[in-house]
Amino acid sequence: MIEKLRAKNPLIHHITNYVTANFCANVCLSIGASPLMADEEDEMSEIAAISNAFVINIGTINYRSLDSAIEAVEHYSKANKPIILDPVGVGASRFRTAALNELLRAGKITTIKANAGEIASILGVQAHTKGVDSHQKISEEFFSKARDFAAENEIVLAISGEKDYIINQDEILCIENGQALCKAITGAGCVLASVVAAFHTISEPFNAAKEAFLYFNIASELASLKASSPASFQVALIDELYNLSEADIAKHSKFKKL
Amino acid sequence: MIEKLRAKNPLIHHITNYVTANFCANVCLSIGASPLMADEEDEMSEIAAISNAFVINIGTINYRSLDSAIEAVEHYSKANKPIILDPVGVGASRFRTAALNELLRAGKITTIKANAGEIASILGVQAHTKGVDSHQKISEEFFSKARDFAAENEIVLAISGEKDYIINQDEILCIENGQALCKAITGAGCVLASVVAAFHTISEPFNAAKEAFLYFNIASELASLKASSPASFQVALIDELYNLSEADIAKHSKFKKL
Amino acid sequence: MIEKLRAKNPLIHHITNYVTANFCANVCLSIGASPLMADEEDEMSEIAAISNAFVINIGTINYRSLDSAIEAVEHYSKANKPIILDPVGVGASRFRTAALNELLRAGKITTIKANAGEIASILGVQAHTKGVDSHQKISEEFFSKARDFAAENEIVLAISGEKDYIINQDEILCIENGQALCKAITGAGCVLASVVAAFHTISEPFNAAKEAFLYFNIASELASLKASSPASFQVALIDELYNLSEADIAKHSKFKKL
Repeated sequence: MIEKLRAKNPLIHHITNYVTANFCANVCLSIGASPLMADEEDEMSEIAAISNAFVINIGTINYRSLDSAIEAVEHYSKANKPIILDPVGVGASRFRTAALNELLRAGKITTIKANAGEIASILGVQAHTKGVDSHQKISEEFFSKARDFAAENEIVLAISGEKDYIINQDEILCIENGQALCKAITGAGCVLASVVAAFHTISEPFNAAKEAFLYFNIASELASLKASSPASFQVALIDELYNLSEADIAKHSKFKKL
Repeated sequence: MIEKLRAKNPLIHHITNYVTANFCANVCLSIGASPLMADEEDEMSEIAAISNAFVINIGTINYRSLDSAIEAVEHYSKANKPIILDPVGVGASRFRTAALNELLRAGKITTIKANAGEIASILGVQAHTKGVDSHQKISEEFFSKARDFAAENEIVLAISGEKDYIINQDEILCIENGQALCKAITGAGCVLASVVAAFHTISEPFNAAKEAFLYFNIASELASLKASSPASFQVALIDELYNLSEADIAKHSKFKKL
Repeated sequence: MIEKLRAKNPLIHHITNYVTANFCANVCLSIGASPLMADEEDEMSEIAAISNAFVINIGTINYRSLDSAIEAVEHYSKANKPIILDPVGVGASRFRTAALNELLRAGKITTIKANAGEIASILGVQAHTKGVDSHQKISEEFFSKARDFAAENEIVLAISGEKDYIINQDEILCIENGQALCKAITGAGCVLASVVAAFHTISEPFNAAKEAFLYFNIASELASLKASSPASFQVALIDELYNLSEADIAKHSKFKKL
């Protein structure tokens, strides 16, 4: 998969937040994709025509960039190109919730990449049930509603967290790779959406999300062997994404069907 | 203080410039706070309701983001939550000066974090008197007006520079920690405002500014033992902010009352 | 030249994309210049009055920032201060092409820093002819039209790529320094424009572009001796830009007249 991705060198258009745009761009380059950030509504049709996939991240969205994103979703949707939605902070404000709904109405979103809290907000459920110990557990109701949502919207839900879950109408996959230091750097989730988008250009959505999560998580594990503090970990993470081989992934992958 | 901060994990809302937003977010995470960047006016009331403190930095402000910041100041002010203002480049244009005045009128700013030149512009004085040698010295008039301003506005002035000064109506504290390489990286002042904001959520303003400056400056000193060039220094700085202990601060603190 | 630049510490105003603005600012600091990012139209005249050069990069431009850039070009042009234009992605959309034309009409652009594809789009030619092997070669037609364009517009074209070319009406210089890993990090071209702008404040345009390219490319070569993966290379690159000496440049420079 990695060789295929590097050979294709897909162009990934982003409308993303200004906090992690640089990290997203560097991660794209490190995995063999090309990043393109553009958010002027007037050029969305032409940018959509030359790009292979679209990432929309609502982290610092405003009415201007939302209009551009909606326009973009329409173009990518008509062209049957992958659209990855990262609904950062959805539920934190009516504006974000409305933005999400407008984006979902504007066209065919392929995959939502989010954390469990954001997905729970979309589904209208609690994400976690407290267990007998202090560990939070994703609730059965969450999984059930997530599957219904995936079926109704023909969408993949790619959920990052301590454990990751890839969900469509037929399957729930749990990925157990990944490194806790990702939570100590800003944008680990944002760049994961870029990786997911890149894999969507060479594989069908469920498998693309799975391969992207494995790739990113295993790179993070290898990076943590080289650095144990956040800034040096981030440097190592990008370097590992650049150097990771199929063999590394085959050797380290840990996932199971639920 | 650090343990208290990490235990609280305060949410720090920023309207900041797009140049150093990523650095601010990573510094928040490194000290145990959570960053949130959002600048759409429509969501300011809800973001203010969930955040513990607000940083407004006018580095790349425009009329749209200024309106949002003013709206945010009103909400934080009503809720008695800390507001940290970083008036980047104030005095460089009438727009920035007007922006500062509008923000000061919009509500109760808790602390202004700035360099001496910016504070001098606010006070309408010269910051420096040239001594017999080439070293610039903060003028007595500056300190006197700063104290008056602090008293009138019930505000703390936290001034970064070769030496740092924390000023309120009663006290002037001089902090002598800090590393010159901070001037060779962009945003050292911006991220310091984030640290100041985080400490405001666990202590009263004057002490919060003092503790934040000590924390940041001592981390910069320790980072300079590991790296002597700017980019590797920045990596080391974030790593040190992440690893710094109460004992490090107790051991290295250098400050005195003026 | 480097000593002269560091002694002058020029202020470089940027209207640039939010993806690489931080990298541009850090590169400015590393070479001894001061960065200033500001894009509110109302303050363009005052910012232009205090700045030594202006960089306009259209990577994530929108109608609002374009209006500010046009206003800025008028002010810098009247004051005979250097204006460096980086027409990122020109030709990818009518909006970008129109933006370029408006900027060229607004005043006297000193130097366009771009890759061969962007320059080809401006000139209305193909950049490359395929040779007998797989290496692309810049076409004779490209060079001929580039020279005409430079003559008509009294402009320098500074073209980055595998080999770099500095072109005015009289001369074509080919620079053979540079490191392939620059393509694996985002913004190498953007920051090169910042370096070009800084050298424009201490030398005439053609020589400024040449010295800037040599400086940047040799720093990238030295960085590649310390790091072979993109994120650690970027750290090393900024560090090398900070530490580079005249002797390094004299020792490593490789260029020739065509």
